[in-house]
Amino acid sequence: MKTINFEQEIKSLLPLFQPESLAIIGASENPFKPSGQPLVSLINAGFKGKIYPVNPKHTTLCNLPCYPALIDVPGSVDLAIIAVPAKYTLDQLQQCADKGVKGVIIFTSGFAEVGPEGAKIQMEITELAQKTGMRVCGPNCMGIFSSRNALMANFSVTELPEQVLVPDFLGFISQSGGFGAAIYQMIKEKGYGFSHFVSTGNEADVDFSQYMGFMARDNYTRVIGGYLEGVKDGQKFINATDMALQNNKPILLIKAGRYPAAAKAAASHTGALVGSDKVYSAVFKQKGIIRIESLEEYQIVLSILASNKCPKGKRIAILATSGGSGVALTDKCSFYGLEVAPLQAETRAKLDNVLPAFASSANPVDITSAILTQPGLLEQCAEIVINDPGIDMLITAYWALHGDRTNLEQMVRVSKKTDKPIFNIVWGPEEAALQALHFLNDNLIPAAKEVDFAIRSLAVLADYSEFKTARSNKNNEDYSIQAPPSAKKMAGEILNNLKPGAKLTEYEAKQVLRAYGISTTREVLTKTTEKAVQAAKEIGYPVVMKIMSPDILHKTEAGGVLLNIATDQEVVESFNKIIENARKYNQDALVQGVLVQEMLSGGTEIIVGAGKDPVFGSTIIAGLGGIFVEVLEDVALRVAPVSNLDAREMLEELKGKKIFEGVRGKEPVDKNALVEIIQKVSRLVEDFPQIAELDINPLLLFPKGAVAVDALIVLQ
Amino acid sequence: MKTINFEQEIKSLLPLFQPESLAIIGASENPFKPSGQPLVSLINAGFKGKIYPVNPKHTTLCNLPCYPALIDVPGSVDLAIIAVPAKYTLDQLQQCADKGVKGVIIFTSGFAEVGPEGAKIQMEITELAQKTGMRVCGPNCMGIFSSRNALMANFSVTELPEQVLVPDFLGFISQSGGFGAAIYQMIKEKGYGFSHFVSTGNEADVDFSQYMGFMARDNYTRVIGGYLEGVKDGQKFINATDMALQNNKPILLIKAGRYPAAAKAAASHTGALVGSDKVYSAVFKQKGIIRIESLEEYQIVLSILASNKCPKGKRIAILATSGGSGVALTDKCSFYGLEVAPLQAETRAKLDNVLPAFASSANPVDITSAILTQPGLLEQCAEIVINDPGIDMLITAYWALHGDRTNLEQMVRVSKKTDKPIFNIVWGPEEAALQALHFLNDNLIPAAKEVDFAIRSLAVLADYSEFKTARSNKNNEDYSIQAPPSAKKMAGEILNNLKPGAKLTEYEAKQVLRAYGISTTREVLTKTTEKAVQAAKEIGYPVVMKIMSPDILHKTEAGGVLLNIATDQEVVESFNKIIENARKYNQDALVQGVLVQEMLSGGTEIIVGAGKDPVFGSTIIAGLGGIFVEVLEDVALRVAPVSNLDAREMLEELKGKKIFEGVRGKEPVDKNALVEIIQKVSRLVEDFPQIAELDINPLLLFPKGAVAVDALIVLQ
Repeated sequence: MKTINFEQEIKSLLPLFQPESLAIIGASENPFKPSGQPLVSLINAGFKGKIYPVNPKHTTLCNLPCYPALIDVPGSVDLAIIAVPAKYTLDQLQQCADKGVKGVIIFTSGFAEVGPEGAKIQMEITELAQKTGMRVCGPNCMGIFSSRNALMANFSVTELPEQVLVPDFLGFISQSGGFGAAIYQMIKEKGYGFSHFVSTGNEADVDFSQYMGFMARDNYTRVIGGYLEGVKDGQKFINATDMALQNNKPILLIKAGRYPAAAKAAASHTGALVGSDKVYSAVFKQKGIIRIESLEEYQIVLSILASNKCPKGKRIAILATSGGSGVALTDKCSFYGLEVAPLQAETRAKLDNVLPAFASSANPVDITSAILTQPGLLEQCAEIVINDPGIDMLITAYWALHGDRTNLEQMVRVSKKTDKPIFNIVWGPEEAALQALHFLNDNLIPAAKEVDFAIRSLAVLADYSEFKTARSNKNNEDYSIQAPPSAKKMAGEILNNLKPGAKLTEYEAKQVLRAYGISTTREVLTKTTEKAVQAAKEIGYPVVMKIMSPDILHKTEAGGVLLNIATDQEVVESFNKIIENARKYNQDALVQGVLVQEMLSGGTEIIVGAGKDPVFGSTIIAGLGGIFVEVLEDVALRVAPVSNLDAREMLEELKGKKIFEGVRGKEPVDKNALVEIIQKVSRLVEDFPQIAELDINPLLLFPKGAVAVDALIVLQ
Repeated sequence: MKTINFEQEIKSLLPLFQPESLAIIGASENPFKPSGQPLVSLINAGFKGKIYPVNPKHTTLCNLPCYPALIDVPGSVDLAIIAVPAKYTLDQLQQCADKGVKGVIIFTSGFAEVGPEGAKIQMEITELAQKTGMRVCGPNCMGIFSSRNALMANFSVTELPEQVLVPDFLGFISQSGGFGAAIYQMIKEKGYGFSHFVSTGNEADVDFSQYMGFMARDNYTRVIGGYLEGVKDGQKFINATDMALQNNKPILLIKAGRYPAAAKAAASHTGALVGSDKVYSAVFKQKGIIRIESLEEYQIVLSILASNKCPKGKRIAILATSGGSGVALTDKCSFYGLEVAPLQAETRAKLDNVLPAFASSANPVDITSAILTQPGLLEQCAEIVINDPGIDMLITAYWALHGDRTNLEQMVRVSKKTDKPIFNIVWGPEEAALQALHFLNDNLIPAAKEVDFAIRSLAVLADYSEFKTARSNKNNEDYSIQAPPSAKKMAGEILNNLKPGAKLTEYEAKQVLRAYGISTTREVLTKTTEKAVQAAKEIGYPVVMKIMSPDILHKTEAGGVLLNIATDQEVVESFNKIIENARKYNQDALVQGVLVQEMLSGGTEIIVGAGKDPVFGSTIIAGLGGIFVEVLEDVALRVAPVSNLDAREMLEELKGKKIFEGVRGKEPVDKNALVEIIQKVSRLVEDFPQIAELDINPLLLFPKGAVAVDALIVLQ
């Protein structure tokens, strides 16, 4: 349902990107002003549609007739740019609506970013857009550039790039005008073509996710990029990433606000809630979004994608021209998670055949200074190594020589014969190195002089390949854990009859968990000492006894939990003691009874829980209990729904994961049981979105199976 | 004693760097051969001393008289370069000794790096050097370059640099010829002058540390740099770093082999044991050595040092020209451990005074695109911000404009007026950015386009300043914990009477610990059940009983430990049981008796230990016990001696350090007691170097004091 709406939303963006007619309200012919730059650029770049300048002060602008008001424009208008002061903006937007304009770009600033008064006017823009179905980009934005149709509807990209090595490549969306323009400039300079470039501004109507969705569906976009500070609607964002995955388009985002200081700065920059970076990080993992950490990495990742050779795995070979640089490259590969893999005996034999005696054919391969004296050696070695079936990619480092392209041409030839990426680290005097890098870049051979950026880029792309491979396996993408209708009914009887904000007692919460197939301690809620003794006998000694009251959530604090109760008499005493303590703790507390519970020993303490993120909705956490969570905050987080693979990856990222394999003489525990419970919790909070918080703490995980010992559920 | 020797060793290197006469054995005049390059370069560069080519095949070379053999050279020879095949090398070296040559550089390869046979000849080189006192650089090296005297005694640096911005700056030592040459080239290109550049080769005689020591004492070296794979003698390395610290010279090392794959590659590259990177890492921390992670970082750290403005602390201000780039820079600062500190109210008021209304004066300061329209704004803002007393450094990011140096000149002016570093991130079209970077670099203003390298470089230099400040406080540098003579005597009575390889029982080990003032559990070694009961009564129930035998070190495994013994009768039964179990476990074991020990409860489990590193000698570890050490390997390591500050820093780097402050309702524990014990263990292993291994596990740390519960000492 949501997805269908989202498809429609995306389609409605077409007039923003492919208008056949365009009006500029408040137009001028001064190319240094936002009101003039689009007009001049559209004409110079050869925009194919009709252009209507609108400004009562002129009769012509740039030799085009200029209209006093939008209503005076003779034909229909697909897209309008509004470049008038803030106080006139809403009126002009209304005129757009009256004229039947389909898309509007508002350059004007002075709205939500300046304070509450501006936010109020912005809200009216939003309402007008929603009421009329007219799509609005901005306000407070730099506009839209589309290359195919020379749509220069912005004041940042003023001309079509002269030379494009890879046309129809990157669609870029930026939540910062200035920083976005800087990124545009750097990527353009490398020759990578932009399909579209959008500065989103305050997103009064169209938001970051809708632009992403548009580019996921767009035929001229191969890669989706962006600078992101935050989205308001997580579900839309996920819809857009799913579309990109379906269409096999990588998403490369610079996401600001990883650290609190930056998140604060971003919030003050956009005037919007940016959400928790931990949750974004979870979504990025679940959806294979590539988080780009620097402008240099952006260029390099794009250069590898532009070459159409993504590393399929993490096994890298190194070809160096000195022992020292081979060692240094090996360190970097390890640091960034790539495996400097052993070469096959056959490969080494072939290398030994061409290398001088003092060289080394082990990975890192050291071809030594023989590269200078043995023509073709670099090419021979590269070809031998890249054809090793145990290798996913090659990185080679050599010295640029003034005016000598021998090595470069060798690398171009080798690269053309393989579908695995070969990355060239080129060192040397600045000018020679730059020329070499330009030559390689022009031949679509990935190359740089910075080892760190290069290897990290290869590593993130290897991760991306592994993400896609793992997700292409249906078993991994299994979200199929479904509760039977009876379970939903049972849980619903409890959850649907409670008031908003209600807190379930442990006893109630565990009934819900059991309904969803999660084992809990055996337990009986008792209201008299007699019933308690009877229950204890049935369960078997020793038992635990706990106060059950919706008004007492911190049971231990209230003296409401007694452990290791071993006899009938102790049960009676404990029952009375617990009731007495509860009265003392909160004399108005509604007491439902005393829970008599089996006392488990052994097992590994785990916590599994769920929460709500204001942007992305239900989140799921899992971690090792006790000091792991308290001291190390060692928990893994995902957003619901969590697939089988997601759950397994959660456990893999825990620092204390060694515990699962058994330490201090313990047996390994039942990880599969935990994976299933994580998915069941995910299913439960999806079936009952009114659950704001769920905690199973501890869950005891055994060599076979797992049992929830305590649990808490809080409704919204 | 050691240090005095080291001073002499260093002085003896002078002829390698400042010879007044130089012979080249096996000389040629072909500048493309190692045998010819030095001769040509020495003449071209204007070396002031005498040059004697030696080669029986020639009578003149490069217009200089050429001698058939070294003996034929008329005057004395300070330094000889040997560039003859490996098989003639030893003979020529002997001739150098006969001639009274003081320093020799052997270019020739084919020694330890090619296998055992080569290693044998190399050993003879070492012996000849040691016997004669003649100092040898190499073999298998590229030689030595010194700039002051135009000493081109190498085949890597062939000419004096044309333009040197900062003369007498960097002394560089490289354990890789090729990689070292690459580093040389990149640093030279920035205009930073080398005092000396050494390729160390196989280090048959002079080693990395001696060159470091030489540069620490050298008047023309301000900064010591190097590419390091490993040293053989850790003490010498430490002596050299201490000298550098005394002389206020930063040490910047690229240390290879952080990860196993690279360590393996380095070992095969140098043919030498490279040692544990963890121990190097500890030494770097204790001695303030700056570990450089990339060539780019090398250039940038040098550029900041060259400007003579090192950040004194970690508080950074950001001046950006777009909100987005300010946010992105803030994230990077947080990532690399810098603090984007709040600006003082006065600073913000001054900023608000000059900034446009839509800009932001909070750190990160966003001066917006007003930088383009308000001349002088960048300079004004930078000056206001850098003068904030709560700020240690400033980073600013702006766009390079073709042919327009306005911003650059502003930054030069501001930088000249402050002693705090101002770093310039310059973005823009490649050519404009390069020109801007060159201009700033030529004015000794630190600048780059890569944010990551820039901020990481500022962070490592802030760390270095903090290291020096902390060490300048005498209390922090306190190594004064001394054992009284009686303690040394008591411990000596036990330790000096044991055979090499002996393993002390817990009872013996704890006596040693107590002698050094480390509290242990109260305990009595008993040989009869009667004595055991008596002991238990004195200690107070409950007690622990343990088998004591030098042949049973894994006491628990042998059934030799019983806990929670509460009555006289249980003592008797336990005694007999333990003896019986010990007999079953190892019927030949020498049993010294049964240890009756107080049973402690509560406290936080800690481990403190000592070990031996083949390179650096005694090492000290400390960590949290239990799963922290077993699952997370959460231990801090240092080499002995450990100062008070070192010990405190060890605890600071533990992942689980939150435990010390008290978690789960526990009181904070006595960190000072632990700091003292770490230092006492350090003192103990220094006083008794025969201790190969020492383990206190667990040490129970209480809110007041700490008690060793179990201990182990193994001798070498």
